[in-house]
Amino acid sequence: MSRAAARDEGRVAALGELQALLGDRLTTAAAMREAHGRDESWHAVAMPDAVAFARTTEEVAAIIRICSAYDMPVIPFGAGTSLEGHVSAVHGGLSLDLSQMNAILEVNAADLDVRVEAGVTRKQLNDYLRDTGLFFPIDPGANATIGGMVATRASGTNAVRYGTMRENVLNLTAVMADGSVVRTARRARKSSAGYDLTRLLIGSEGTLGIVTEVTLRLYGIPEAIRSGVVPFASIEGAVDAVIETIQSGLPVARIEILDPLSIRACNAYSKLTLAEVPTLFVEFHGTDASVAEQAERFGAIASEHGGGASEWATKAEDRTKLWEARHNAYYAALAYAPGKKGMVTDVCVPISRLAEAIRGTLADLETSFLKAPIVGHVGDGNFHMLLLMDPANPQDLAEATRLHDRMVARALSLDGTCTGEHGIGEGKIKFLEAEHGTGVAVMRAIKQALDPKGILNPGKIFSA
Amino acid sequence: MSRAAARDEGRVAALGELQALLGDRLTTAAAMREAHGRDESWHAVAMPDAVAFARTTEEVAAIIRICSAYDMPVIPFGAGTSLEGHVSAVHGGLSLDLSQMNAILEVNAADLDVRVEAGVTRKQLNDYLRDTGLFFPIDPGANATIGGMVATRASGTNAVRYGTMRENVLNLTAVMADGSVVRTARRARKSSAGYDLTRLLIGSEGTLGIVTEVTLRLYGIPEAIRSGVVPFASIEGAVDAVIETIQSGLPVARIEILDPLSIRACNAYSKLTLAEVPTLFVEFHGTDASVAEQAERFGAIASEHGGGASEWATKAEDRTKLWEARHNAYYAALAYAPGKKGMVTDVCVPISRLAEAIRGTLADLETSFLKAPIVGHVGDGNFHMLLLMDPANPQDLAEATRLHDRMVARALSLDGTCTGEHGIGEGKIKFLEAEHGTGVAVMRAIKQALDPKGILNPGKIFSA
Repeated sequence: MSRAAARDEGRVAALGELQALLGDRLTTAAAMREAHGRDESWHAVAMPDAVAFARTTEEVAAIIRICSAYDMPVIPFGAGTSLEGHVSAVHGGLSLDLSQMNAILEVNAADLDVRVEAGVTRKQLNDYLRDTGLFFPIDPGANATIGGMVATRASGTNAVRYGTMRENVLNLTAVMADGSVVRTARRARKSSAGYDLTRLLIGSEGTLGIVTEVTLRLYGIPEAIRSGVVPFASIEGAVDAVIETIQSGLPVARIEILDPLSIRACNAYSKLTLAEVPTLFVEFHGTDASVAEQAERFGAIASEHGGGASEWATKAEDRTKLWEARHNAYYAALAYAPGKKGMVTDVCVPISRLAEAIRGTLADLETSFLKAPIVGHVGDGNFHMLLLMDPANPQDLAEATRLHDRMVARALSLDGTCTGEHGIGEGKIKFLEAEHGTGVAVMRAIKQALDPKGILNPGKIFSA
Repeated sequence: MSRAAARDEGRVAALGELQALLGDRLTTAAAMREAHGRDESWHAVAMPDAVAFARTTEEVAAIIRICSAYDMPVIPFGAGTSLEGHVSAVHGGLSLDLSQMNAILEVNAADLDVRVEAGVTRKQLNDYLRDTGLFFPIDPGANATIGGMVATRASGTNAVRYGTMRENVLNLTAVMADGSVVRTARRARKSSAGYDLTRLLIGSEGTLGIVTEVTLRLYGIPEAIRSGVVPFASIEGAVDAVIETIQSGLPVARIEILDPLSIRACNAYSKLTLAEVPTLFVEFHGTDASVAEQAERFGAIASEHGGGASEWATKAEDRTKLWEARHNAYYAALAYAPGKKGMVTDVCVPISRLAEAIRGTLADLETSFLKAPIVGHVGDGNFHMLLLMDPANPQDLAEATRLHDRMVARALSLDGTCTGEHGIGEGKIKFLEAEHGTGVAVMRAIKQALDPKGILNPGKIFSA
C-alpha cells in the first residue's frame, strides 16, 4: 500500500471513531468544510476532510487522541476572522470548531477577571459584562473568539492603553498534542513559578495546543470617556502628532490613523460625512477631570502638527458609531472595490520610526496601479495596508506581493516586526526567518518537542 | 574508568580550555567559588568548580560551547540577590558571572526603551537615566542585575502600576545551550510573529539560555509623586483597604503592607519612628491634580477601614528614606534577629483571597515559637513571610518548613501561586508539581528540547 493510500485509510478510520464520539457534530458536508477552510483574507481555501463541533475540554482531548493515533491534522476554528490563512487545512485533516464552547463560566468581579470558554466572542463577553461595570478591552475589530484572539496574540485599538492579549490573559486551559489537558497558571496576577506556558501558547496559532478555556483580566468601565475625530493637513502631521502624544506619556486609550482613502470608504460604508483628509480617531478614559485634561493636552499637540478642530462624540451612541466605522474599515475597503479581495499587511515599528515606515509605504503606493487604504493602531507603531486586489489576476497578485514585501522589509529594517497582531499563518512564513534568524530553530525545537507528529495546525508559522 | 572519574577528567579539560579563553577571568579560588555558590537566603552554599567573568555575548557563547562539549553545568550569576538558592552549584560546574557585562548600550528616549547588558543593576540604570527624565520602574528591593530580574521574572513595589519583568521587556539576547545566540524579538511594542521566546526566557532561571542583553521599556518620571504612610488599627483593616483600592480601579503606583514586627525592625534598622502597628506604605504618580485626587480617594477608603491620618512624605529625600526602609525590610529583619537566616516565602493570590491568606498565616505564627515579619506588595495579592531561623538548628528548620509549607498550600488552595516573584530555584521545586500538575511535563519537554544535556543551571525549577 502506498503512503498516500495508508494515510487515506487512516483518515477514514479516524473519521469513523470521531463519528462514534460526536454523532452529528461531525460533518463532512462540502459547504461546511468549505466555510471552515477560509478566513477573511485573500488566501486560497483549503478544505478540511471534516468539521467537528466540540462541546467540552474533555471532548477536545478525546478528539486529539483519535487524531494523534491516526496522524490526522487538527486545525482549531473559532470565528474564522483571521487574516493570514490560519484556518486553511493545507494538509487536510479535521477542522475543530470551538464556537459551541461559548459559555461565560465565572465572573470574579472582586478580582477583575473572568473565565470563559474559547468560543466566546469579544462582543458576547462585553454584552454579558455590561451590567457589572466591567469590560474586556482587547478589540481587534472583528468579532473574533477569545480563543482565536489568544491564538494570534491579538490586540487592536485599545492596546496602546490596555496592552494586548499577551498582557491580559491570566491563564489558559489547553489540550496538548498528546491529549493531556494543561491549565497554564493560577488566577494570581503574577507568578514566578516555572516556564510561562500561558505566554508560550498565546500567539502559537494552534500549533502547540488547542486552547479551550481562558481567564482574562477585566477593567472597570471608565467613569468618563471622550472620543473624537481630528482632521490633519498631512499624513506626516498626523503621525508626528501621534509620536509626540506617546512620547509625552499622555495615557491615550485609542489613537488610530485613517488615510483619505480609508475615510472615503468609511464614509460610504458607515454613512459618515468626514472630510477626506488624513484623520486621527482618538479616545481618552478616566475621570471627568482627567479626560478633559487629556483632551486639552492632545488638542495642543495636534494643532502644532496641522491638526484641525477636534469633533468630540459626547453621546454614547455617537461614540459607538465612530468606533464601529473604524472597526468596519476593512469591510468598508472591500465594499469600495467590489470583486477585489484584501491582502492586509500588518507591521509594527518603534514609534520613532513610524513616520518613515508610513511615508515609504505611501511613496510605493503613489506609483502603483493598486489601491490600498492605510489604517492603523499608530499609538503602538502598528499599521495596516489594505491592498485591494484580485488574487486570480496574476498582475494584481504580483504587484500586491511586491508592495507587501517592501512594506515588511522596510519594517524589519526599522527594527520592527513583520506582524504586529495578525500572526504568521501561512501568509508570512517567509518573513519569520528574516525576522527571527536563529530564533526559528528554537521555535522549531519547541514545536517538535510538544507536537512530535506535527498534527496541530501543520503548515502554519513554519512550512511543513 | 568510573563515571565520576570520567566526569572529573572532563571538567579538568573544560577548565583548561576556559582558562585559555579567559585568562585570569577564570578563577578557582575558594573564596570566590564560595561567594558564587550562595544567594541572600538560608539555602546551603554549593560551590562551583570555578568562576568565569564574561565580557561579551560572543565570549558567553564560547564558554557555553566548551561547557557543552564536556557536559559541564553552567550557572549564571548576577548580583547574587536571589532568594531560592538559584545560584548554588548543586552539581558543581561553572558559575558564569555576568556582572562585568554592565554597559548601558543604547537609550532610545523617543521610543521609551533602553538596551542594556545583563549585568547592569537596576540602581545603576536609574542613576544613568536620571537626566533623561525617564525611569525603569521594576524594583525588587535588592539591587539586582537586569539579567537576574529577567531570570526570576522579578517584580516588586511598582508592579501594581507598571507590571512585572514579564510586561517590561521588549526583547532579549540569549545564548542557548548549543552556543547559538538568539535575539528574541525586535524593538516594536508588540508582535505576533511566532512563539514568544522573550516570555519563555523570562522566569526560566537560567535553565533554558543565558541572557546577555535586554531591551527594557522605560517610563517618563511622573510630573508629581506623593508617598505616604498610613497606620491601621488591624491587619484586616489594612488588607481590606488595599482590596477596595484595587477593586475601585484607583491607579496606585505602590501599596505595601508591613506588620507591626516589620515596622519594629525597620524603625531600628532604618532609624524611623513609625508607630508599631499594621501599616501601609503608598505612592501615587501623575499630575499634581491627579495625585491629589488619588490621595484623597485613598484616604477616604483607608479611614473606612480603620486607617489613621496619612503622613505624606512631600520632599524627595523623605520619599527616598521611606522606600529605602521598605526595600531594606529583609535586611532589617535579619538584623533584628542576629545569628538567624531568612526563609523568605513569597506567595501571590487573587486579591479577593488576600485577607484569608494573610489571616491564616498570622494565625499559624501566633502559635509558633518562630518570629516572622510579614511584608508585601499587596496590591498584586503578593506577600512575604520572613521566617527568622537557624538552618543548622533542626527544630528551627522543621518549624520554619512547616509554616512555609502551610502558607504555600493555603495560597494554592486559594487559586494562588507558590511564588509571586522569587522563583522556584531549588527551594520550591516540591511545589511546582502541586501548582502546575500536567503542565510540568510540558515544561520538562521544553527543557529537554532546548538543553538536552541538562547543562544550564541543573537542579533548579526541576529536580535533576
